[in-house]
Amino acid sequence: MFQLLAHDPSSKARRGRLTTPRGAIETPEFMPVGTQGSVKAVFARDLHELGTQIILGNTYHLFIRPGLDVINHFGGLHKFVSWEKPMLTDSGGFQVFSLAKLRKITEEGVSFQSHVDGAACFIGPETSMEIQTALGSDIAMVFDECPHAGCGYDYAATSLALTLRWAKRCRAWWDEHHNLGAQVFGIVQGSTHAALRRESAEALVQIGFDGYAVGGVSVGESEAEMMRAVENSEPFLPADKPRYTMGLGTPPQMVEMVARGVDLFDCVLPTRIARNGTAFTEHGTLPLKNTASKMNTGPIEEGCVCYACRHFSQGYLRHLLKAEELVGLMLVSLHNTHFYLNLMRRVRAALEAGTFAEFRKTFVENYVPPQRDA
Amino acid sequence: MFQLLAHDPSSKARRGRLTTPRGAIETPEFMPVGTQGSVKAVFARDLHELGTQIILGNTYHLFIRPGLDVINHFGGLHKFVSWEKPMLTDSGGFQVFSLAKLRKITEEGVSFQSHVDGAACFIGPETSMEIQTALGSDIAMVFDECPHAGCGYDYAATSLALTLRWAKRCRAWWDEHHNLGAQVFGIVQGSTHAALRRESAEALVQIGFDGYAVGGVSVGESEAEMMRAVENSEPFLPADKPRYTMGLGTPPQMVEMVARGVDLFDCVLPTRIARNGTAFTEHGTLPLKNTASKMNTGPIEEGCVCYACRHFSQGYLRHLLKAEELVGLMLVSLHNTHFYLNLMRRVRAALEAGTFAEFRKTFVENYVPPQRDA
Repeated sequence: MFQLLAHDPSSKARRGRLTTPRGAIETPEFMPVGTQGSVKAVFARDLHELGTQIILGNTYHLFIRPGLDVINHFGGLHKFVSWEKPMLTDSGGFQVFSLAKLRKITEEGVSFQSHVDGAACFIGPETSMEIQTALGSDIAMVFDECPHAGCGYDYAATSLALTLRWAKRCRAWWDEHHNLGAQVFGIVQGSTHAALRRESAEALVQIGFDGYAVGGVSVGESEAEMMRAVENSEPFLPADKPRYTMGLGTPPQMVEMVARGVDLFDCVLPTRIARNGTAFTEHGTLPLKNTASKMNTGPIEEGCVCYACRHFSQGYLRHLLKAEELVGLMLVSLHNTHFYLNLMRRVRAALEAGTFAEFRKTFVENYVPPQRDA
Repeated sequence: MFQLLAHDPSSKARRGRLTTPRGAIETPEFMPVGTQGSVKAVFARDLHELGTQIILGNTYHLFIRPGLDVINHFGGLHKFVSWEKPMLTDSGGFQVFSLAKLRKITEEGVSFQSHVDGAACFIGPETSMEIQTALGSDIAMVFDECPHAGCGYDYAATSLALTLRWAKRCRAWWDEHHNLGAQVFGIVQGSTHAALRRESAEALVQIGFDGYAVGGVSVGESEAEMMRAVENSEPFLPADKPRYTMGLGTPPQMVEMVARGVDLFDCVLPTRIARNGTAFTEHGTLPLKNTASKMNTGPIEEGCVCYACRHFSQGYLRHLLKAEELVGLMLVSLHNTHFYLNLMRRVRAALEAGTFAEFRKTFVENYVPPQRDA
């Protein structure tokens, strides 16, 4: 169930509440990514302390390793990883196309070799739904083909047609087998083509899902493409269902997508750049290994309430990162995850207070993206 | 100040309290090793929760990186790393001999090249004391030459003579400069030669220190050598001063050294083997990557109260370790550090209750060392 609690009059931003059997999720919200059953370098205890409402698990990775026999033996993914709050699982589609080897796509599904041990595997729409059900997912995603960003119209259209046939099969399997109150979301594809995005959204809505994701945009792509994908999809999605942009984005990009009507996000950036020693701040990213931090006795960000900022200086963090001490990347991973979750908390508060327009303007103006994002 | 609170009638084990300006340390105690300003993969917050009373910092590492200019700028090591409890620093001696390149030993001290950037450095007795004072050490160690384990009598005797001359210079520098209430410990050397161990201990006691370490035995060496080094030194050390075996050992070895009159330990084993996926238990080490843990729904150790054991199964930990997820080694590092600290807590309780003899027998009998330790 998805309730809309407030709207921003200046944009399409909404304050909502998505209810699942394992608890409600106040939206807009960011979902930390637990690819292989843990959020990289962050304890579950700390995720709880940071107020995490929902985490993401990657079906492809968990299917490959440890495998369903192990996860079934432990009573599902929640019990295996000791996480009792809601969990969203992706369908495995994106990873099959980005990680697996020797892929062969047929009407039936995708045959591939595991990137871990080369074992022959198959995932199709029904198997994806079956795996996600076995994992105990609270929000499952349909299995889609993910064409690469620069593909032409013809490839995108053919791919979309297959993805829509697969979406119908996912829905059919779900209706027949799934009785646990979990939800299933459709994924709008169509690459950079506005007409295909519309066709995709309308066809998915006709099939009928509990929520809708915008897929097929990677965090490395241009911000303009990212926003266009949302703008070309959102008008054709029902207002009373949650929207989710998969795998995106930077802090100001998330705020801009909220303004375009998006409710849910996941992204590996907070933990990935932390492992390179870079922290998120209100004013952009801070590469802590730089000499500028060497003698800095202040925290990553003044006023930040995370454990790293309450106790440790930039100079100390820089030392740990330069010396390749794990505690350094653990602290920055914690800070960055807090930063993302707290940003969404601030977005929700602004929507409740009716000050989102102002918040959006100030936040996006203050945040200076690094050159490569320009 | 060192108070003796209880003695075990069956052995030389003692229950003591070592008071420093930053707090008292109940002994026997294990000191987690914060080589480069952090205990590897363990947050300071967790060390506090585990009841850590004192941590160790490595003078050589911190002198090389971040360097004294940085640590001075931050107001000393305690402030730099945000650790307010006592800290012991080694003298840099051992690391100069095990890590640095192009060493040249003279009467004055040791010239060497940094293992990080090849920079020319010098540490002698006075510089070591000066660095440890700048770090703000609560317990400083004298600067010693560390001959390798297999050296003959002649080399060991010559080395010991130099080490004793250096010990006098350390004491002299300390008496002249140090007014902060910190303590300085001597280090008994003499390799495997009983006569030299005695000579070393007696000479150090004559100089007079706040405590005495037994040095020159590595964790990889035979247990018999380790025990002999303690047995050959302890009778010549004053009963009313704390004794510390540097860099040692496995859990049963620590219990055996307590029985031989040792009060303080430090060792990298708990965090080092954790990073290889091996956990300490009452019955010996548990290599969690083994297939035996794959379907095991129990914790590393039943009844263990650490965060890892309260929440996570062996099967989950094995999965994380196999998938090279950092949370896996973080959890095992936490467990192993808890295991070492808790072992010392149990030793202290047994000494207080007068049951140490029984505890020692049961613990050592139950603990099965891996073949390589046999």
